[in-house]
Amino acid sequence: MRKLYAIGIGAGDPEHLTVQAIDRLNRVDVFFVLDKGSEKADLVRLRQEILDRFVTRPGYRVVLAEDPPRDRTPADYRAAVADWHAARAEVYEQLIRTELGPSGTGAFLVWGDPSLYDSTIALIEAVLARGNVEFEYEVVPGVSSISALVARHRTTMNQIGRAVQLTTGRRLAEGWPDGVDDVFVLLDAHTTFDRFADEGLQIFWGAYVGTPDEILLSGPLTAALAEEIRRVRAEARERHGWIMDTYLLRRPARE
Amino acid sequence: MRKLYAIGIGAGDPEHLTVQAIDRLNRVDVFFVLDKGSEKADLVRLRQEILDRFVTRPGYRVVLAEDPPRDRTPADYRAAVADWHAARAEVYEQLIRTELGPSGTGAFLVWGDPSLYDSTIALIEAVLARGNVEFEYEVVPGVSSISALVARHRTTMNQIGRAVQLTTGRRLAEGWPDGVDDVFVLLDAHTTFDRFADEGLQIFWGAYVGTPDEILLSGPLTAALAEEIRRVRAEARERHGWIMDTYLLRRPARE
Ligand SMILES: C[S@@+](CC[C@H](N)C(=O)[O-])C[C@H]1O[C@@H](n2cnc3c(N)ncnc32)[C@H](O)[C@@H]1O
Ligand SMILES: C[S@@+](CC[C@H](N)C(=O)[O-])C[C@H]1O[C@@H](n2cnc3c(N)ncnc32)[C@H](O)[C@@H]1O
Repeated sequence: MRKLYAIGIGAGDPEHLTVQAIDRLNRVDVFFVLDKGSEKADLVRLRQEILDRFVTRPGYRVVLAEDPPRDRTPADYRAAVADWHAARAEVYEQLIRTELGPSGTGAFLVWGDPSLYDSTIALIEAVLARGNVEFEYEVVPGVSSISALVARHRTTMNQIGRAVQLTTGRRLAEGWPDGVDDVFVLLDAHTTFDRFADEGLQIFWGAYVGTPDEILLSGPLTAALAEEIRRVRAEARERHGWIMDTYLLRRPARE
Repeated sequence: MRKLYAIGIGAGDPEHLTVQAIDRLNRVDVFFVLDKGSEKADLVRLRQEILDRFVTRPGYRVVLAEDPPRDRTPADYRAAVADWHAARAEVYEQLIRTELGPSGTGAFLVWGDPSLYDSTIALIEAVLARGNVEFEYEVVPGVSSISALVARHRTTMNQIGRAVQLTTGRRLAEGWPDGVDDVFVLLDAHTTFDRFADEGLQIFWGAYVGTPDEILLSGPLTAALAEEIRRVRAEARERHGWIMDTYLLRRPARE
């Protein structure tokens, strides 16, 4: 039986790799790497660094594949997303069928923790649901970007006994979520924290967390700090050609 | 200068340890272990297993300490909690002062990820704020129980583009949180999922996740499944003398 792993590799620091991840890396015949856009080169390089450092078993292969292009200005948004998911499942299925022998072992190296805002697990499930290829698979958890962020800021996710929300920039743009004092924001291309300046919040922001290029900024979210983060972020994005950043917005809880 | 580490050790599987955690473990002179209650023996054993397996540097010490007792039926709840936190900070301060030389390195081994529903970081900050002892400190992120839970269930934390809430049993008892479809519940001694049976939710439940005693149950949260989890949980708790369980409640999102 074919075997697949979705392996969490941590959010940028090769030392985030777990013992379990390293064990699984060393059982793999073929690593599938699907990346896109401008961050591609840097992220492919980090994955290669991880393989060079941690895989001692010789003879593995790395297969690079292109994510299918996505229609960014579709007439029908929902149909376009569904089409894109189907096209991606098709690519994954082809990779598994053509690159993996009937008892071969393949792996996807997933940024951070595979369970957090990542489509690998859904795609593997979609391939299984299509029913054209059989395999077993296992998910190996990893250190997420938000764990890495708060560790570097030496703060916690939650305030004592309080709830925490994980959300996207797009959702935060709809307003402060109800019933929570701590909100983690991922996938925010628009510095949405801006809208919450001078409202008594704290921000813990980080870009390229865990990498040599890490930038951390934190403090009371004044308009001045929001402006500074925007400036630092724009400069870094310009310099690298891409950026990965995430942040925690905290409303200090009254007991 | 004294140095302290708060090291995330994962949620029960020694293979959750990261390369970074293992590196830091091997710099430590004194490990502080503070545990309480009936789970004490098992959890102390797991920590010892981690040290035996991963620390190659000889000559470290392990200092076991008692968490100060907590007044469970106080007249003034808030004052009692504040007293208890102060008493704990006092214990941590004493440990650091008496057990650690002026350039010694100490560590707290923190279950799961140190940032999630754990008081170690707050206590270290409280000791620093008291100003009686100086030290540097670093937080090493780890695999949390909720990452481990969803990896074992091979599902994701979030549905595509949706928000996620992390909360406690006590808060969930106040009702389904607003604006989210996926809710992780920790610290729930009262099987609070019960109240949400037969409402079209799915549950992904796990106890002792990552350990040889792991139990996983999932499916549509019918009254029958709620009842089954309650029964399995009560039996396991009886058998072990303690239980650690957590779960994800998911409301399948309509697109
Ligand atoms: C597609 S999501 C994947 C998240 C990943 N699975 C995880 O566990 O962190 C990508 C988003 O994660 C965040 N992110 C990932 N790695 C990061 C890093 N090293 N520093 C800052 N943010 C990061 C950013 O918000 C980015 O937009
Ligand atoms: C004080 S909190 C600490 C959480 C920890 N810092 C983490 O990252 O998972 C303890 C709660 O975590 C959850 N938990 C921790 N380890 C677990 C495990 N191995 N299996 C199931 N639940 C676990 C339970 O809900 C438990 O009540």
